[in-house]
Amino acid sequence: MTAEMFPKEKTIDLRKKHIGPSCKVFFSHDPIKIVRAKGQYMYDENGVRYLDCINNVAHVGHSHPMVVKAGAEQMELLNTNSRFLHDNLVQYAQRLQATLPEKLSVCYFVNSGSEANDLALRLAWEYTGHKDVITLDNAYHGHVSSLINISPYKFHQLANAEQSKSVHVALSPDLYRGNYRQDHPDPATAYADDVNNLIQKAHEKGHKVAAFIAESLQSCGGQVIPPAGYFQKVAQHVHQAGGLFIADEVQVGFGRVGTHFWAFQLQGEDFVPDIVTMGKPIGNGHPMSCVVTTREVAEAFKNSGMEYFNTFGGNPVSCAIGLAVLDVIEKEDLQGNALRVGGYLMRLLEQQKEKHPLVGDIRGRGLFVGAELVRDRVKLTPATAEAQDIIYKLKEQHILLSADGPHRNVLKFKPPMCFSEEDADMVVEKIDQILTVEVEIQKSEPF
Amino acid sequence: MTAEMFPKEKTIDLRKKHIGPSCKVFFSHDPIKIVRAKGQYMYDENGVRYLDCINNVAHVGHSHPMVVKAGAEQMELLNTNSRFLHDNLVQYAQRLQATLPEKLSVCYFVNSGSEANDLALRLAWEYTGHKDVITLDNAYHGHVSSLINISPYKFHQLANAEQSKSVHVALSPDLYRGNYRQDHPDPATAYADDVNNLIQKAHEKGHKVAAFIAESLQSCGGQVIPPAGYFQKVAQHVHQAGGLFIADEVQVGFGRVGTHFWAFQLQGEDFVPDIVTMGKPIGNGHPMSCVVTTREVAEAFKNSGMEYFNTFGGNPVSCAIGLAVLDVIEKEDLQGNALRVGGYLMRLLEQQKEKHPLVGDIRGRGLFVGAELVRDRVKLTPATAEAQDIIYKLKEQHILLSADGPHRNVLKFKPPMCFSEEDADMVVEKIDQILTVEVEIQKSEPF
Repeated sequence: MTAEMFPKEKTIDLRKKHIGPSCKVFFSHDPIKIVRAKGQYMYDENGVRYLDCINNVAHVGHSHPMVVKAGAEQMELLNTNSRFLHDNLVQYAQRLQATLPEKLSVCYFVNSGSEANDLALRLAWEYTGHKDVITLDNAYHGHVSSLINISPYKFHQLANAEQSKSVHVALSPDLYRGNYRQDHPDPATAYADDVNNLIQKAHEKGHKVAAFIAESLQSCGGQVIPPAGYFQKVAQHVHQAGGLFIADEVQVGFGRVGTHFWAFQLQGEDFVPDIVTMGKPIGNGHPMSCVVTTREVAEAFKNSGMEYFNTFGGNPVSCAIGLAVLDVIEKEDLQGNALRVGGYLMRLLEQQKEKHPLVGDIRGRGLFVGAELVRDRVKLTPATAEAQDIIYKLKEQHILLSADGPHRNVLKFKPPMCFSEEDADMVVEKIDQILTVEVEIQKSEPF
Repeated sequence: MTAEMFPKEKTIDLRKKHIGPSCKVFFSHDPIKIVRAKGQYMYDENGVRYLDCINNVAHVGHSHPMVVKAGAEQMELLNTNSRFLHDNLVQYAQRLQATLPEKLSVCYFVNSGSEANDLALRLAWEYTGHKDVITLDNAYHGHVSSLINISPYKFHQLANAEQSKSVHVALSPDLYRGNYRQDHPDPATAYADDVNNLIQKAHEKGHKVAAFIAESLQSCGGQVIPPAGYFQKVAQHVHQAGGLFIADEVQVGFGRVGTHFWAFQLQGEDFVPDIVTMGKPIGNGHPMSCVVTTREVAEAFKNSGMEYFNTFGGNPVSCAIGLAVLDVIEKEDLQGNALRVGGYLMRLLEQQKEKHPLVGDIRGRGLFVGAELVRDRVKLTPATAEAQDIIYKLKEQHILLSADGPHRNVLKFKPPMCFSEEDADMVVEKIDQILTVEVEIQKSEPF
């Protein structure tokens, strides 16, 4: 099947001419043109099928017919702003709320994870009257200017990075490569104490902390799974300082972690954030997103006197699509699938770790899995070039995977939630083949 | 036709429970529930038809079949991010570029006017290395935190508003109510000199100006039409200070002004902004938006070393919808319609001005028209309550109009572009009836 308008070379030329050069393509040496997709598969202009291990946005599967139908039917009927009453808006808010702890009851609908996290900051600033924000090292929270400020993953890239004086970077609670590791008696407390130290230092300078923000599991930061109890301890310190806890679920929410609908719930029922932000998977690719908070925070924000209006946020089409995504997750038991297939994938990858010294660590929850590659299992020297090489070789075999983390050495699995055990078999088998050759290269030409 | 799931009272209750209380509804005393819309008409749950004079987002008409079809077909095929090559993206960029002066050739696709204006600031900061921004009084540029800072329309609402030291507010170039009016010999120079004064004051404090930002015609600021030549003179001052000129076309672009496709073009062919931001009408309600700039600015942004990635921005569905909107504007000559019907509407309103002392000023271009209501034509006392009253009375007669501007006394027409002369007749006739009674009230009970 061909569904292209221009030959690939022309597409590349026009892209160079008219699209901002800061907007990168995957596999820049030989980018892929995708013309259609279904489930966990994408197809290029020549009909070649790629197994998609990376598009967590296409949460319930690319072009899911129930989602497409819901969107198309509502577009035909009405698409307007939320200053008019509409049942889709309130029904959707009600359905989202039902997945969350009871006190998280008030929604704001926006268009992207960036808009959601920026609004979360505005809510925290207004509620607390404080200004400072504590963020994790290697965190990424979005592309608008307020979020670049709290995203070390981004601002470390800048030549002349000047860190805002009201932003404090806490240690990433990484048990593999971080300051406190698997062998530490109580890493949750140790990492939470680091947050508390930052709070105390901020206080010494006369600053006050509005919020601690973290992805419930760090994604770009390297598929980091914080130790159990960490969020509770951090929340205690932050609340004591009058600040709020913002859980960023943009990458990891909506059942991906398998055992729970939200990744922050992995920390236990006794933990409830003050603000939760949602994004990417929420609309299966449709531009939409949401912030949920408590009645108290919402009322404080209202009392500032400023209306909040978002032109597209919460429109009937976005809400119809959001409802359809929730329906499909339930109907197809995709959370259960994430648990089963994610577990299966982890076991396969653990076998790779036993077989190939390059595979240093396997970690994940459900269909959010990372395989960290190292040249040396003691020094943990990041195998960055090797990770890139694997990604490119997999692409040649029509499998889409990416490498991320501060050293770009973590193979990152976050496929559509309909990913199957056969898909897991296929990708791990190919990785095994590549690593087997790779190991030979390493033996003859050590790095 | 009824297409509701809940009785209206239940919708209102759920909204109170689950939607942020800062998110206002139209006609809060008796909000409207809209269940479908077509062209310039919206329908409530009882099938009552409303004439829509306000939804500039539904640019080519609510639920336009060509736009719906383009969106639905592309959703069925593929919706993914712009790290994959896709022809819709480059074709759409090419088509947009063709509407603009040649040097505005590089696009960034984002999801909302707010994301667009925030990115415009990031581009200006990076290109110039400067920090300060000059904005117009009463301006509104979006809801993310960086834009609240440059939106006096918003930050004036705050009880404890603290204006950022790097933001300077210039006089709104309002020839009716501003510092320099119709009777001034050269208001363009006078208003531009005010901008220059702000630049000089910033320099005295050791600050440097990154950008001047203005809507090409101020919308929330009160439907203000800047005098011819104003932008050229401002651009000269700003460029001399090493800053950039950002034209915000989020409300007024895409042919609405009738004579031109972009409202900044009203200033003459010798004026070209450095950055143009687009939004609302671009996707007929679909969440999408764009920033266009020069090659030089784009390269400087790239050279910062930071990738720009926007998860949903420029996805194939958004681009298909954007292309369809451009097609419909052309095919149905909606720009021509805006010119013809807008002119007709202006003439009808001018007659109202002659007839009713409350109507102080009629101003506009194409289907972007304001009628400013005053209690006294010399003192220009804003007729705020009267404007609200008219809006509510029109609503009772099933016509949707709004009042805006710093005094909320400007009746604001920005209907879908398929608005007809009959529609104009209908709304002005109703306004005439209301004003006739109003005037009687005024005679018996003067304000």
